[in-house]
Amino acid sequence: MQLNVIKIGGNVIDDPVALESFLKDFTKIEGPKILVHGGGKEATRLSSRLGIETRMIEGRRVTDRPTLEIVTMVYAGLVNKRIVSHLQALGCDAIGLCGADGNVIKATMRPKTPRDYGFVGDINPDEINAGFIRMLTDKGLTPVFCAINHDGRGELLNCNADSVASAVAIACSKFYEVTLTYCFEKAGVLTDVDNPDSLIPEIDSKSYEILKSSGAVSGGMIPKIDNAFAAISKGVTFVTIKSAGNIAGPTGTLIRH
Amino acid sequence: MQLNVIKIGGNVIDDPVALESFLKDFTKIEGPKILVHGGGKEATRLSSRLGIETRMIEGRRVTDRPTLEIVTMVYAGLVNKRIVSHLQALGCDAIGLCGADGNVIKATMRPKTPRDYGFVGDINPDEINAGFIRMLTDKGLTPVFCAINHDGRGELLNCNADSVASAVAIACSKFYEVTLTYCFEKAGVLTDVDNPDSLIPEIDSKSYEILKSSGAVSGGMIPKIDNAFAAISKGVTFVTIKSAGNIAGPTGTLIRH
Repeated sequence: MQLNVIKIGGNVIDDPVALESFLKDFTKIEGPKILVHGGGKEATRLSSRLGIETRMIEGRRVTDRPTLEIVTMVYAGLVNKRIVSHLQALGCDAIGLCGADGNVIKATMRPKTPRDYGFVGDINPDEINAGFIRMLTDKGLTPVFCAINHDGRGELLNCNADSVASAVAIACSKFYEVTLTYCFEKAGVLTDVDNPDSLIPEIDSKSYEILKSSGAVSGGMIPKIDNAFAAISKGVTFVTIKSAGNIAGPTGTLIRH
Repeated sequence: MQLNVIKIGGNVIDDPVALESFLKDFTKIEGPKILVHGGGKEATRLSSRLGIETRMIEGRRVTDRPTLEIVTMVYAGLVNKRIVSHLQALGCDAIGLCGADGNVIKATMRPKTPRDYGFVGDINPDEINAGFIRMLTDKGLTPVFCAINHDGRGELLNCNADSVASAVAIACSKFYEVTLTYCFEKAGVLTDVDNPDSLIPEIDSKSYEILKSSGAVSGGMIPKIDNAFAAISKGVTFVTIKSAGNIAGPTGTLIRH
Protein backbone atom coordinates (compact mmCIF):
# COMPACT_ATOMS: atom_id res chain seq x y z
CA MET A 1 0.00 0.00 0.00
CA GLN A 2 1.20 3.49 -0.84
CA LEU A 3 1.89 6.17 1.76
CA ASN A 4 2.50 9.80 0.86
CA VAL A 5 4.86 11.76 3.10
CA ILE A 6 4.73 15.45 2.24
CA LYS A 7 6.87 18.15 3.74
CA ILE A 8 5.76 21.76 3.48
CA GLY A 9 8.21 24.64 3.78
CA GLY A 10 8.09 27.72 5.97
CA ASN A 11 7.34 30.19 3.17
CA VAL A 12 4.10 28.41 2.31
CA ILE A 13 3.09 28.35 5.99
CA ASP A 14 3.70 32.10 6.16
CA ASP A 15 1.29 32.76 3.26
CA PRO A 16 -2.32 32.09 4.42
CA VAL A 17 -3.68 31.89 0.84
CA ALA A 18 -0.96 29.49 -0.35
CA LEU A 19 -1.36 27.42 2.83
CA GLU A 20 -5.13 27.11 2.48
CA SER A 21 -4.78 26.10 -1.16
CA PHE A 22 -2.08 23.56 -0.29
CA LEU A 23 -4.15 22.05 2.53
CA LYS A 24 -7.13 21.65 0.18
CA ASP A 25 -4.95 19.79 -2.34
CA PHE A 26 -3.36 17.75 0.45
CA THR A 27 -6.78 16.69 1.74
CA LYS A 28 -7.67 15.35 -1.72
CA ILE A 29 -4.76 12.89 -1.75
CA GLU A 30 -6.23 9.45 -1.31
CA GLY A 31 -4.92 6.76 1.00
CA PRO A 32 -2.69 7.11 4.03
CA LYS A 33 -0.64 10.30 4.19
CA ILE A 34 1.59 12.25 6.52
CA LEU A 35 2.36 15.96 6.63
CA VAL A 36 5.60 17.40 8.03
CA HIS A 37 5.94 21.13 8.48
CA GLY A 38 8.56 23.71 9.33
CA GLY A 39 7.59 27.20 10.42
CA GLY A 40 10.83 29.17 10.66
CA LYS A 41 9.75 32.74 10.01
CA GLU A 42 7.05 32.83 12.66
CA ALA A 43 9.65 31.74 15.25
CA THR A 44 12.01 34.46 14.09
CA ARG A 45 9.22 37.05 14.36
CA LEU A 46 8.31 35.95 17.89
CA SER A 47 11.99 35.95 18.93
CA SER A 48 12.33 39.48 17.65
CA ARG A 49 9.17 40.66 19.47
CA LEU A 50 10.60 39.16 22.68
CA GLY A 51 13.98 40.79 22.12
CA ILE A 52 15.73 37.45 21.65
CA GLU A 53 18.42 37.39 19.01
CA THR A 54 18.08 34.81 16.22
CA ARG A 55 21.38 33.18 15.31
CA MET A 56 21.65 30.93 12.27
CA ILE A 57 24.68 28.86 11.27
CA GLU A 58 24.49 27.45 7.74
CA GLY A 59 20.71 27.82 7.74
CA ARG A 60 20.27 26.02 11.08
CA ARG A 61 18.84 27.90 14.05
CA VAL A 62 21.12 28.00 17.09
CA THR A 63 18.72 26.93 19.83
CA ASP A 64 19.49 28.12 23.33
CA ARG A 65 16.91 27.55 26.09
CA PRO A 66 14.76 30.66 25.36
CA THR A 67 14.84 29.84 21.63
CA LEU A 68 13.83 26.22 22.35
CA GLU A 69 10.78 27.56 24.20
CA ILE A 70 9.94 29.80 21.25
CA VAL A 71 10.21 27.08 18.60
CA THR A 72 8.23 24.68 20.82
CA MET A 73 5.46 27.27 21.14
CA VAL A 74 5.46 28.21 17.47
CA TYR A 75 6.03 24.84 15.77
CA ALA A 76 4.28 22.43 18.16
CA GLY A 77 1.63 24.93 19.26
CA LEU A 78 0.65 27.70 16.88
CA VAL A 79 1.59 26.30 13.47
CA ASN A 80 0.81 22.65 14.18
CA LYS A 81 -2.62 23.27 15.70
CA ARG A 82 -3.51 25.84 13.03
CA ILE A 83 -2.77 23.26 10.32
CA VAL A 84 -4.59 20.46 12.17
CA SER A 85 -7.73 22.54 12.76
CA HIS A 86 -7.77 23.61 9.09
CA LEU A 87 -7.37 20.03 7.92
CA GLN A 88 -10.18 18.92 10.25
CA ALA A 89 -12.42 21.62 8.77
CA LEU A 90 -11.60 20.24 5.30
CA GLY A 91 -12.59 16.73 6.37
CA CYS A 92 -9.07 15.35 6.86
CA ASP A 93 -8.79 13.57 10.23
CA ALA A 94 -5.44 15.08 11.20
CA ILE A 95 -3.54 14.56 14.44
CA GLY A 96 -0.68 16.89 15.36
CA LEU A 97 2.43 15.36 16.83
CA CYS A 98 5.80 16.31 18.19
CA GLY A 99 8.33 13.54 18.66
CA ALA A 100 7.53 13.15 22.37
CA ASP A 101 3.88 12.28 21.64
CA GLY A 102 3.61 8.51 21.77
CA ASN A 103 7.45 8.52 21.85
CA VAL A 104 7.16 8.69 18.08
CA ILE A 105 10.50 10.34 17.21
CA LYS A 106 13.53 10.20 19.42
CA ALA A 107 16.35 12.57 18.53
CA THR A 108 19.93 12.87 19.73
CA MET A 109 21.39 16.21 20.68
CA ARG A 110 23.96 17.25 18.13
CA PRO A 111 27.53 17.09 19.47
CA LYS A 112 28.75 20.45 20.78
CA THR A 113 31.81 20.35 18.56
CA PRO A 114 32.78 21.66 16.08
CA ARG A 115 29.80 23.98 16.55
CA ASP A 116 27.40 24.21 19.47
CA TYR A 117 23.89 24.49 18.07
CA GLY A 118 22.30 24.14 21.54
CA PHE A 119 19.07 22.15 21.80
CA VAL A 120 19.23 20.85 18.24
CA GLY A 121 18.64 17.19 17.50
CA ASP A 122 19.49 14.75 14.76
CA ILE A 123 17.31 11.79 13.91
CA ASN A 124 18.14 8.20 13.17
CA PRO A 125 15.27 6.56 11.20
CA ASP A 126 15.71 3.46 13.40
CA GLU A 127 14.68 5.61 16.40
CA ILE A 128 11.26 6.31 14.89
CA ASN A 129 8.28 4.45 16.33
CA ALA A 130 6.89 3.39 12.95
CA GLY A 131 4.43 1.03 14.62
CA PHE A 132 2.78 3.98 16.34
CA ILE A 133 2.54 5.87 13.04
CA ARG A 134 1.05 2.82 11.36
CA MET A 135 -1.48 2.42 14.20
CA LEU A 136 -2.69 5.96 13.46
CA THR A 137 -2.74 5.65 9.66
CA ASP A 138 -4.54 2.29 9.96
CA LYS A 139 -7.30 4.17 11.82
CA GLY A 140 -7.60 6.67 8.96
CA LEU A 141 -5.76 9.40 10.84
CA THR A 142 -3.30 11.76 9.15
CA PRO A 143 -0.27 12.50 11.33
CA VAL A 144 0.99 16.10 11.13
CA PHE A 145 4.55 16.37 12.43
CA CYS A 146 6.32 19.49 13.53
CA ALA A 147 10.10 19.36 13.83
CA ILE A 148 10.24 19.34 17.65
CA ASN A 149 11.34 15.95 18.97
CA HIS A 150 12.59 14.61 22.28
CA ASP A 151 15.63 12.78 23.61
CA GLY A 152 13.64 10.36 25.80
CA ARG A 153 15.15 11.89 28.92
CA GLY A 154 12.76 14.81 29.22
CA GLU A 155 14.42 17.25 26.85
CA LEU A 156 12.80 18.61 23.70
CA LEU A 157 15.07 19.15 20.72
CA ASN A 158 14.68 21.36 17.65
CA CYS A 159 15.21 19.34 14.48
CA ASN A 160 15.29 20.08 10.80
CA ALA A 161 11.90 19.50 9.19
CA ASP A 162 13.42 18.17 5.92
CA SER A 163 15.32 15.57 7.96
CA VAL A 164 12.17 14.67 9.95
CA ALA A 165 10.32 14.08 6.67
CA SER A 166 13.12 11.93 5.27
CA ALA A 167 13.46 9.87 8.46
CA VAL A 168 9.69 9.35 8.80
CA ALA A 169 9.51 8.27 5.15
CA ILE A 170 12.37 5.80 5.63
CA ALA A 171 10.88 4.37 8.85
CA CYS A 172 7.45 3.91 7.23
CA SER A 173 8.92 2.10 4.25
CA LYS A 174 8.87 -0.98 6.50
CA PHE A 175 5.09 -1.04 6.13
CA TYR A 176 4.32 0.99 3.01
CA GLU A 177 5.48 1.88 -0.46
CA VAL A 178 6.48 5.42 0.46
CA THR A 179 6.72 8.47 -1.76
CA LEU A 180 8.29 11.57 -0.24
CA THR A 181 7.53 15.04 -1.59
CA TYR A 182 9.26 18.24 -0.55
CA CYS A 183 6.88 21.12 -1.27
CA PHE A 184 7.95 24.72 -1.21
CA GLU A 185 7.41 28.03 -2.97
CA LYS A 186 9.55 27.19 -6.04
CA ALA A 187 8.72 24.86 -8.94
CA GLY A 188 11.47 22.43 -7.90
CA VAL A 189 15.25 22.48 -8.07
CA LEU A 190 16.21 25.40 -10.30
CA THR A 191 19.62 26.21 -11.73
CA ASP A 192 18.60 29.88 -11.48
CA VAL A 193 16.39 30.43 -8.42
CA ASP A 194 14.75 33.47 -10.05
CA ASN A 195 13.84 31.64 -13.23
CA PRO A 196 11.11 28.96 -13.00
CA ASP A 197 12.06 27.82 -16.52
CA SER A 198 15.42 26.63 -15.20
CA LEU A 199 13.76 23.64 -13.50
CA ILE A 200 15.86 20.48 -13.40
CA PRO A 201 13.34 17.68 -14.08
CA GLU A 202 15.49 14.87 -12.71
CA ILE A 203 18.60 14.50 -10.57
CA ASP A 204 20.54 11.28 -10.06
CA SER A 205 23.63 10.84 -7.92
CA LYS A 206 25.92 11.41 -10.91
CA SER A 207 24.25 14.61 -12.14
CA TYR A 208 24.01 15.81 -8.51
CA GLU A 209 27.80 15.83 -8.20
CA ILE A 210 28.10 17.87 -11.39
CA LEU A 211 25.37 20.31 -10.31
CA LYS A 212 27.06 20.82 -6.95
CA SER A 213 30.56 21.31 -8.30
CA SER A 214 29.35 23.78 -10.95
CA GLY A 215 27.51 25.76 -8.25
CA ALA A 216 24.17 25.33 -10.08
CA VAL A 217 22.77 23.77 -6.90
CA SER A 218 23.84 25.41 -3.65
CA GLY A 219 22.84 26.68 -0.22
CA GLY A 220 19.78 25.29 1.50
CA MET A 221 18.95 23.08 -1.47
CA ILE A 222 21.95 20.83 -0.73
CA PRO A 223 20.77 19.41 2.64
CA LYS A 224 17.28 18.98 1.11
CA ILE A 225 18.66 16.93 -1.80
CA ASP A 226 20.96 15.03 0.59
CA ASN A 227 17.86 14.13 2.63
CA ALA A 228 16.14 13.02 -0.57
CA PHE A 229 19.06 10.74 -1.52
CA ALA A 230 19.15 9.34 2.02
CA ALA A 231 15.47 8.46 1.65
CA ILE A 232 15.75 6.65 -1.69
CA SER A 233 18.87 4.80 -0.57
CA LYS A 234 16.94 3.46 2.46
CA GLY A 235 13.70 2.16 1.05
CA VAL A 236 11.64 5.15 -0.08
CA THR A 237 10.25 4.55 -3.58
CA PHE A 238 10.71 8.03 -4.96
CA VAL A 239 11.28 11.61 -3.89
CA THR A 240 10.20 14.77 -5.65
CA ILE A 241 10.90 18.41 -4.89
CA LYS A 242 8.13 20.63 -6.19
CA SER A 243 5.85 23.61 -5.76
CA ALA A 244 3.32 23.51 -2.92
CA GLY A 245 0.81 24.84 -5.47
CA ASN A 246 1.23 21.72 -7.58
CA ILE A 247 1.25 18.67 -5.32
CA ALA A 248 -1.03 16.68 -7.60
CA GLY A 249 0.73 17.74 -10.81
CA PRO A 250 3.46 15.87 -12.65
CA THR A 251 6.15 18.56 -12.68
CA GLY A 252 8.93 19.22 -10.22
CA THR A 253 12.31 17.63 -9.71
CA LEU A 254 12.47 13.86 -9.38
CA ILE A 255 15.37 12.55 -7.31
CA ARG A 256 16.55 9.10 -8.34
CA HIS A 257 19.52 6.83 -7.85
CA MET B 1 -12.42 -1.11 34.09
CA GLN B 2 -11.38 2.00 35.94
CA LEU B 3 -10.09 5.15 34.26
CA ASN B 4 -8.50 8.02 36.18
CA VAL B 5 -9.00 11.52 34.79
CA ILE B 6 -6.77 13.98 36.62
CA LYS B 7 -6.74 17.73 36.13
CA ILE B 8 -3.74 19.70 37.25
CA GLY B 9 -3.96 23.42 37.99
CA GLY B 10 -1.83 26.28 36.73
CA ASN B 11 0.00 26.93 40.02
CA VAL B 12 1.43 23.42 40.04
CA ILE B 13 2.53 23.78 36.42
CA ASP B 14 4.32 27.01 37.34
CA ASP B 15 6.35 25.29 40.05
CA PRO B 16 8.95 22.95 38.44
CA VAL B 17 9.58 21.01 41.68
CA ALA B 18 5.87 20.48 42.41
CA LEU B 19 5.26 19.56 38.75
CA GLU B 20 8.06 16.98 38.66
CA SER B 21 6.83 15.42 41.90
CA PHE B 22 3.24 15.36 40.63
CA LEU B 23 4.26 13.76 37.31
CA LYS B 24 6.18 11.03 39.17
CA ASP B 25 3.10 10.24 41.28
CA PHE B 26 0.87 10.41 38.20
CA THR B 27 3.10 7.92 36.36
CA LYS B 28 2.69 5.43 39.21
CA ILE B 29 -1.11 5.31 38.84
CA GLU B 30 -1.94 1.94 37.36
CA GLY B 31 -4.37 1.34 34.53
CA PRO B 32 -5.66 3.77 31.92
CA LYS B 33 -5.37 7.44 32.84
CA ILE B 34 -5.78 10.88 31.34
CA LEU B 35 -4.18 14.17 32.32
CA VAL B 36 -5.79 17.57 31.68
CA HIS B 37 -3.79 20.72 32.31
CA GLY B 38 -4.26 24.45 32.46
CA GLY B 39 -1.31 26.82 32.27
CA GLY B 40 -2.68 30.29 32.90
CA LYS B 41 0.24 32.17 34.40
CA GLU B 42 2.68 31.35 31.65
CA ALA B 43 0.20 32.78 29.09
CA THR B 44 -0.18 35.94 31.18
CA ARG B 45 3.60 36.31 31.36
CA LEU B 46 4.01 35.90 27.60
CA SER B 47 1.18 38.38 26.95
CA SER B 48 2.88 40.89 29.18
CA ARG B 49 6.26 40.40 27.48
CA LEU B 50 4.55 40.99 24.12
CA GLY B 51 2.76 44.09 25.42
CA ILE B 52 -0.68 42.48 25.10
CA GLU B 53 -3.11 43.32 27.87
CA THR B 54 -4.63 40.39 29.79
CA ARG B 55 -8.32 40.88 30.53
CA MET B 56 -10.15 38.48 32.84
CA ILE B 57 -13.89 38.45 33.52
CA GLU B 58 -14.90 36.30 36.49
CA GLY B 59 -11.67 34.32 36.24
CA ARG B 60 -12.06 33.65 32.51
CA ARG B 61 -9.54 35.03 30.05
CA VAL B 62 -11.01 37.31 27.39
CA THR B 63 -9.49 35.82 24.24
CA ASP B 64 -9.07 38.14 21.28
CA ARG B 65 -7.08 36.94 18.23
CA PRO B 66 -3.59 37.81 19.59
CA THR B 67 -4.49 36.19 22.94
CA LEU B 68 -5.76 33.06 21.16
CA GLU B 69 -2.36 32.77 19.47
CA ILE B 70 -0.64 33.15 22.84
CA VAL B 71 -2.72 30.52 24.64
CA THR B 72 -2.36 28.14 21.68
CA MET B 73 1.42 28.54 21.82
CA VAL B 74 1.65 28.23 25.59
CA TYR B 75 -0.97 25.56 26.36
CA ALA B 76 -0.80 23.36 23.24
CA GLY B 77 2.91 23.99 22.63
CA LEU B 78 5.13 24.82 25.57
CA VAL B 79 3.22 23.39 28.55
CA ASN B 80 1.74 20.36 26.79
CA LYS B 81 4.99 19.22 25.18
CA ARG B 82 6.99 19.88 28.36
CA ILE B 83 4.61 17.64 30.31
CA VAL B 84 4.56 14.94 27.61
CA SER B 85 8.36 14.82 27.31
CA HIS B 86 8.69 14.60 31.12
CA LEU B 87 6.13 11.79 31.29
CA GLN B 88 7.93 9.92 28.51
CA ALA B 89 11.20 10.22 30.45
CA LEU B 90 9.39 8.71 33.46
CA GLY B 91 8.20 5.76 31.38
CA CYS B 92 4.61 6.95 30.87
CA ASP B 93 3.64 6.70 27.19
CA ALA B 94 1.94 10.11 26.98
CA ILE B 95 0.41 11.74 23.92
CA GLY B 96 -0.38 15.45 23.93
CA LEU B 97 -3.65 16.54 22.40
CA CYS B 98 -5.65 19.65 21.68
CA GLY B 99 -9.28 19.19 20.70
CA ALA B 100 -8.51 19.45 16.97
CA ASP B 101 -6.19 16.41 17.10
CA GLY B 102 -8.22 13.44 15.89
CA ASN B 103 -11.24 15.76 16.19
CA VAL B 104 -11.28 14.68 19.83
CA ILE B 105 -13.03 17.67 21.42
CA LYS B 106 -15.33 19.98 19.55
CA ALA B 107 -16.26 23.20 21.32
CA THR B 108 -18.82 25.90 20.57
CA MET B 109 -17.91 29.54 20.71
CA ARG B 110 -19.57 31.15 23.70
CA PRO B 111 -22.39 33.52 22.68
CA LYS B 112 -21.25 37.15 22.47
CA THR B 113 -23.98 38.29 24.87
CA PRO B 114 -24.21 39.17 27.70
CA ARG B 115 -20.40 39.27 27.58
CA ASP B 116 -18.07 38.83 24.65
CA TYR B 117 -15.20 36.55 25.71
CA GLY B 118 -13.85 36.33 22.16
CA PHE B 119 -12.43 32.97 21.05
CA VAL B 120 -13.66 31.10 24.11
CA GLY B 121 -15.45 27.79 23.77
CA ASP B 122 -17.82 25.69 25.80
CA ILE B 123 -17.92 21.91 25.60
CA ASN B 124 -20.78 19.49 25.39
CA PRO B 125 -19.64 16.00 26.55
CA ASP B 126 -21.65 14.53 23.64
CA GLU B 127 -19.27 16.35 21.27
CA ILE B 128 -16.27 14.44 22.59
CA ASN B 129 -14.84 11.67 20.43
CA ALA B 130 -14.69 9.10 23.25
CA GLY B 131 -13.99 6.30 20.77
CA PHE B 132 -10.75 8.01 19.76
CA ILE B 133 -9.73 8.41 23.43
CA ARG B 134 -10.50 4.75 24.05
CA MET B 135 -8.48 3.71 21.01
CA LEU B 136 -5.47 5.48 22.57
CA THR B 137 -5.95 4.17 26.12
CA ASP B 138 -6.49 0.63 24.74
CA LYS B 139 -3.01 0.91 23.22
CA GLY B 140 -1.54 1.84 26.62
CA LEU B 141 -1.20 5.53 25.73
CA THR B 142 -1.93 8.32 28.23
CA PRO B 143 -3.71 11.28 26.63
CA VAL B 144 -2.59 14.68 27.92
CA PHE B 145 -5.13 17.37 27.08
CA CYS B 146 -4.60 21.08 27.04
CA ALA B 147 -7.65 23.32 27.08
CA ILE B 148 -7.43 24.42 23.44
CA ASN B 149 -10.20 22.89 21.35
CA HIS B 150 -11.68 23.52 17.92
CA ASP B 151 -15.07 24.32 16.43
CA GLY B 152 -14.73 21.90 13.50
CA ARG B 153 -14.73 24.82 11.05
CA GLY B 154 -11.06 25.68 11.36
CA GLU B 155 -11.16 27.87 14.45
CA LEU B 156 -9.35 27.06 17.68
CA LEU B 157 -11.12 28.02 20.91
CA ASN B 158 -9.77 28.61 24.40
CA CYS B 159 -11.70 26.52 26.93
CA ASN B 160 -11.67 26.14 30.67
CA ALA B 161 -9.45 23.22 31.73
CA ASP B 162 -11.76 22.23 34.63
CA SER B 163 -14.62 21.96 32.13
CA VAL B 164 -12.47 19.95 29.71
CA ALA B 165 -11.65 17.49 32.51
CA SER B 166 -15.30 17.15 33.51
CA ALA B 167 -16.49 16.69 29.92
CA VAL B 168 -13.77 14.13 29.11
CA ALA B 169 -14.60 12.20 32.29
CA ILE B 170 -18.31 12.17 31.41
CA ALA B 171 -17.67 11.10 27.81
CA CYS B 172 -15.35 8.27 28.90
CA SER B 173 -17.89 6.94 31.42
CA LYS B 174 -19.48 5.21 28.38
CA PHE B 175 -16.53 2.82 28.39
CA TYR B 176 -15.00 3.01 31.85
CA GLU B 177 -15.72 3.45 35.53
CA VAL B 178 -14.32 6.96 35.72
CA THR B 179 -12.91 8.80 38.71
CA LEU B 180 -12.17 12.49 38.25
CA THR B 181 -9.62 14.30 40.42
CA TYR B 182 -9.00 18.03 40.46
CA CYS B 183 -5.46 18.59 41.73
CA PHE B 184 -4.17 21.97 42.76
CA GLU B 185 -1.92 23.66 45.32
CA LYS B 186 -4.42 23.47 48.23
CA ALA B 187 -5.40 20.41 50.27
CA GLY B 188 -8.96 20.50 48.90
CA VAL B 189 -11.97 22.74 49.40
CA LEU B 190 -11.19 24.92 52.42
CA THR B 191 -13.57 27.17 54.36
CA ASP B 192 -10.55 29.40 55.02
CA VAL B 193 -8.17 29.35 52.02
CA ASP B 194 -5.22 30.22 54.25
CA ASN B 195 -5.85 27.41 56.73
CA PRO B 196 -5.25 23.82 55.53
CA ASP B 197 -7.01 22.57 58.67
CA SER B 198 -10.28 24.04 57.39
CA LEU B 199 -10.57 21.23 54.78
CA ILE B 200 -14.12 20.13 54.02
CA PRO B 201 -13.85 16.32 53.67
CA GLU B 202 -17.11 15.86 51.79
CA ILE B 203 -19.62 18.02 49.93
CA ASP B 204 -23.02 16.88 48.73
CA SER B 205 -25.58 18.97 46.86
CA LYS B 206 -27.32 19.95 50.08
CA SER B 207 -24.21 21.04 52.00
CA TYR B 208 -22.96 22.81 48.83
CA GLU B 209 -25.95 25.16 48.89
CA ILE B 210 -25.26 26.01 52.53
CA LEU B 211 -21.52 26.52 51.92
CA LYS B 212 -22.26 28.82 48.99
CA SER B 213 -24.89 30.93 50.76
CA SER B 214 -22.69 31.34 53.85
CA GLY B 215 -19.80 32.45 51.62
CA ALA B 216 -17.55 29.64 52.96
CA VAL B 217 -17.08 28.52 49.35
CA SER B 218 -16.67 31.28 46.79
CA GLY B 219 -14.78 32.59 43.77
CA GLY B 220 -13.01 30.18 41.42
CA MET B 221 -13.96 27.20 43.59
CA ILE B 222 -17.62 27.50 42.55
CA PRO B 223 -17.21 26.65 38.83
CA LYS B 224 -14.82 23.82 39.85
CA ILE B 225 -17.41 22.29 42.18
CA ASP B 226 -20.14 22.89 39.58
CA ASN B 227 -18.03 20.91 37.10
CA ALA B 228 -17.62 18.18 39.70
CA PHE B 229 -21.38 17.93 40.25
CA ALA B 230 -21.96 17.91 36.48
CA ALA B 231 -19.58 14.95 36.24
CA ILE B 232 -21.18 12.83 38.98
CA SER B 233 -24.67 13.58 37.69
CA LYS B 234 -23.65 12.26 34.25
CA GLY B 235 -21.98 8.95 34.95
CA VAL B 236 -18.63 9.68 36.65
CA THR B 237 -18.21 7.43 39.70
CA PHE B 238 -16.66 9.97 42.03
CA VAL B 239 -14.88 13.30 42.03
CA THR B 240 -12.29 14.56 44.49
CA ILE B 241 -10.62 17.94 44.83
CA LYS B 242 -7.20 17.62 46.43
CA SER B 243 -3.57 18.63 46.62
CA ALA B 244 -1.34 17.81 43.63
CA GLY B 245 1.22 16.63 46.21
CA ASN B 246 -1.14 13.94 47.40
CA ILE B 247 -2.79 12.28 44.40
CA ALA B 248 -2.37 8.78 45.83
CA GLY B 249 -3.42 9.75 49.37
CA PRO B 250 -6.88 9.46 50.86
CA THR B 251 -7.42 13.10 51.88
CA GLY B 252 -9.05 15.92 49.96
CA THR B 253 -12.66 16.88 49.39
CA LEU B 254 -14.99 14.22 48.04
CA ILE B 255 -17.90 15.52 45.96
CA ARG B 256 -20.98 13.32 46.12
CA HIS B 257 -24.66 13.48 45.31
